[in-house]
Amino acid sequence: MAHHPRVEEIEFHLRKIAVLIRHHTREMLGQYQLTLPQYYALLHLRRQTMTMGELCGHLYLASSTVTDLVDRMEKLNYVRRVRDDKDRRVIRLQILDGGEEVIEKVMQDRMRFLSKKLNQLDPNQAEALLQALSNLHSLMEAE
Amino acid sequence: MAHHPRVEEIEFHLRKIAVLIRHHTREMLGQYQLTLPQYYALLHLRRQTMTMGELCGHLYLASSTVTDLVDRMEKLNYVRRVRDDKDRRVIRLQILDGGEEVIEKVMQDRMRFLSKKLNQLDPNQAEALLQALSNLHSLMEAE
Repeated sequence: MAHHPRVEEIEFHLRKIAVLIRHHTREMLGQYQLTLPQYYALLHLRRQTMTMGELCGHLYLASSTVTDLVDRMEKLNYVRRVRDDKDRRVIRLQILDGGEEVIEKVMQDRMRFLSKKLNQLDPNQAEALLQALSNLHSLMEAE
Repeated sequence: MAHHPRVEEIEFHLRKIAVLIRHHTREMLGQYQLTLPQYYALLHLRRQTMTMGELCGHLYLASSTVTDLVDRMEKLNYVRRVRDDKDRRVIRLQILDGGEEVIEKVMQDRMRFLSKKLNQLDPNQAEALLQALSNLHSLMEAE
């Protein structure tokens, strides 16, 4: 099947936008002494506590790397290790208030960054952007 | 400054689209026994040879993780270690034909995946999507 005539341009813009947002997020994280993988770890832990093994699986990183990354976040009081209620031999990772606050601040900053850009579009363009992204997102979720 | 009224929705769709593309890419990479960080390493090495230290910097990963990741790619003949021409003590990483081929195949697959979705839009919607993404990308590159 032939590629869609606009696919290369659309893929290019999507990829660059993602890179620019990630770049901005990384700079922001520096203020909290966090790296991107640590931030992703916090995002996962915010949804639920998990074991090191589960977190490694979510992050696609080796266990030595994740141990390291968790150790540093523990020192910063962003997460802690707790014993599982049901099986005391199992250690689970839990996000702390400090970690939740970092996520909140980074998310707010991300919104502020994007807002500044969106404010430069006229309202029709912003609506068209939202509509277009929503269309693409629905298509990608389908099937 | 108040946030743009559409920023949360736009950020949500952008983030989800990026996650879905990344998810698809990761599945595709499994066929080549590669992880996402290894793929990103290949993308960096395609642009130029680099030392382990430089690659660690680009990937934001610890040197033990990157050594591991490079070792596995060396066994698969995707990269090799070569001595620097100017300073024989320095080891540089170089992408091999096998590595270039993987990148090419993954990129093509990504285009195919996205094309399938775009083919479900009518041409006006596809043009509107391209226009909207191009606008946002320009704004983000500016300043």
